[in-house]
Amino acid sequence: MDFYSLSVQKHLQYNWKLTTKSKVPLNTKEDLSTYYSPWVAQPCREIAQNPSMAYKLTWKNNTIAVVSDWTAVLWLWNIWWLAWLPVMEWKAILFKEFGWVDAIPIVLKTQDPDEIIKIVENISPTFGWINLEDIKAPQCFYIEEQLQSKLDIPIFHDDQHWTAIVVLAWLINALKITNRDIGNIKIIVQWAWAAWIAIVKLLKEYWAQNVIVFDSKWAIYSNRNDLNKYKKEISDLNKDNFKGSMYEALIDADVFIWVWWQWWSLNVEVIQTMKSDPIIFAISNPTSEITPQEAKKWWAKIIATWRSDYPNQINNVLVFPWIFRWILDWWIKKIENKHKIAAAQAIANYVSNPNENMIIPNPLDKNISKIVANAVMSVW
Amino acid sequence: MDFYSLSVQKHLQYNWKLTTKSKVPLNTKEDLSTYYSPWVAQPCREIAQNPSMAYKLTWKNNTIAVVSDWTAVLWLWNIWWLAWLPVMEWKAILFKEFGWVDAIPIVLKTQDPDEIIKIVENISPTFGWINLEDIKAPQCFYIEEQLQSKLDIPIFHDDQHWTAIVVLAWLINALKITNRDIGNIKIIVQWAWAAWIAIVKLLKEYWAQNVIVFDSKWAIYSNRNDLNKYKKEISDLNKDNFKGSMYEALIDADVFIWVWWQWWSLNVEVIQTMKSDPIIFAISNPTSEITPQEAKKWWAKIIATWRSDYPNQINNVLVFPWIFRWILDWWIKKIENKHKIAAAQAIANYVSNPNENMIIPNPLDKNISKIVANAVMSVW
Repeated sequence: MDFYSLSVQKHLQYNWKLTTKSKVPLNTKEDLSTYYSPWVAQPCREIAQNPSMAYKLTWKNNTIAVVSDWTAVLWLWNIWWLAWLPVMEWKAILFKEFGWVDAIPIVLKTQDPDEIIKIVENISPTFGWINLEDIKAPQCFYIEEQLQSKLDIPIFHDDQHWTAIVVLAWLINALKITNRDIGNIKIIVQWAWAAWIAIVKLLKEYWAQNVIVFDSKWAIYSNRNDLNKYKKEISDLNKDNFKGSMYEALIDADVFIWVWWQWWSLNVEVIQTMKSDPIIFAISNPTSEITPQEAKKWWAKIIATWRSDYPNQINNVLVFPWIFRWILDWWIKKIENKHKIAAAQAIANYVSNPNENMIIPNPLDKNISKIVANAVMSVW
Repeated sequence: MDFYSLSVQKHLQYNWKLTTKSKVPLNTKEDLSTYYSPWVAQPCREIAQNPSMAYKLTWKNNTIAVVSDWTAVLWLWNIWWLAWLPVMEWKAILFKEFGWVDAIPIVLKTQDPDEIIKIVENISPTFGWINLEDIKAPQCFYIEEQLQSKLDIPIFHDDQHWTAIVVLAWLINALKITNRDIGNIKIIVQWAWAAWIAIVKLLKEYWAQNVIVFDSKWAIYSNRNDLNKYKKEISDLNKDNFKGSMYEALIDADVFIWVWWQWWSLNVEVIQTMKSDPIIFAISNPTSEITPQEAKKWWAKIIATWRSDYPNQINNVLVFPWIFRWILDWWIKKIENKHKIAAAQAIANYVSNPNENMIIPNPLDKNISKIVANAVMSVW
């Protein structure tokens, strides 16, 4: 049986893979009247008088919503709201399994940013945190900013923050293995997608000096007159104001972040035009642009993918579960770049002897995200 | 310790009373890649091609949302969204404990009907059913109608449907005990609240002939020119076009549905002006208008309350959990009056020898709602 069929079979077997559970004895009329009607009135009143009591009397400080508008499902075509539910369910399960955080998947029908803001705002009372998922740029930035200003609970767009941290961690070790310094390398990003704008912003904080990002109009450079504010923020990293093609940009590049997008598809041979020991992020899913085996044919050894079945997977389960646990416990609203860099360094340092087969820790190692959370806390 | 304090203490003890749980082994890289990235892509594609597969591949056919705008919280003052969360959590727990249905509580910030419709519509993909809770009339009717026409999953307003069934069951046995016939009695309803408009509509189907309902403009009668369409539907039950006060209406009445609303507060002595062996629904919460003990002083024996700590509680846990289970399993979209009447009769008949201490079954009897579901199915 191939993996696709196996996955369907497993999903059929475990269709109620995520369920709810009550922890309270509910056996007598006294239980019913104490917990529910009529005496539940008093916990309600306590919260009415002092909203922070909701964190002590309800599931609010243990429960988050995982909300997606499925606009950034780059790697799957013709996917619509209902069809995105399996992925959101798994995300919720990862939160539970790795961070002991209860997460409720919510797939939205709408893709309109202002409607999304309205909806999330209105369902927010129930939750202690909202994690936005798979929302495309630039609306992901707008939605996150608006909601952060409107709500009194933390809002984060997963693709930006958690993925950026794991990518930086991966890159830190890839640079160690290939004896490179962040200040001296040329990085090419094939597509200005939400996560990659976020990672480029973080790379800038981490002192990257030369990053060329492409979008549908080719290279992003400082005085290009059609840039939105998010692209503008990273445009100065194209330090020579390079305006050529991706083929030209890749010549002598050190790092290539290869998102795959049909009309940007490149021949794998371009890897040969890069510096020796090139570092490749081949992150389309479920089929990578290039497998680690193929990459070796073209001189590349250091390959990141998003696939659990290849080594060195970029898996943000390395970072988010315990950061969430800890942010919920401490009622923290905002994470800054210094926290992200501390997290990335902690992940990178967890691998004592990085090499091409072990660049990043195993995502199933449940210690790692606790260590990450501690590292973040230490720079608070 | 009084009951109010006990309830708060118990809620502090069990603040994470409702949690999520994953049923799937997630131990190896193979688990991660089969269930999640990359092979989850295939279940997504299956659903994209055939939406009904979502019922087989995700939690959709086991999970409902319990959504409230807290506009019909008659019995608690100054309650706002966050403070209503404990009640919605308990509702979700009742679904799980009594009907094995996973329910997610969602308290909305907004009370605007069109916003509520938009929000529920947009979060609906995740759920197999939406149960609306504690929404006031007439907007509860509008919201329910609109959503029923827009969505492909069942939508029900709890206060209308499930409460109506339990009240009718209660009344059937109260009439048996006091040797009354539904066609010959006068019923007074103190307030045209959502649930009571719904119950009056059901009483009409069950051949009640004389029901006078009051609202803020006093008695509802056929040619009153300010009635909305929902009130109009029940106005002909005021068969003599009675236009007087509630005190006058209660003279020689058989049944009084006493909702309590401060400016409609009545002296308990009015019970004495009713027919002998009056039937009283004293349903404000947490403090009833009148306790069963007090009522006896004024000749009334047959008292319904919403309190679990008094006998003969109107508790819609008698009906909803297994109806939900069964509607989810059979993908049923609409319940008609004949189903509701069948359910009420099944509940009433479950009590073999009704008497003033045992009018309605014990809500903790977990058999009852299965019997109800079977009864409904038998008239399908």
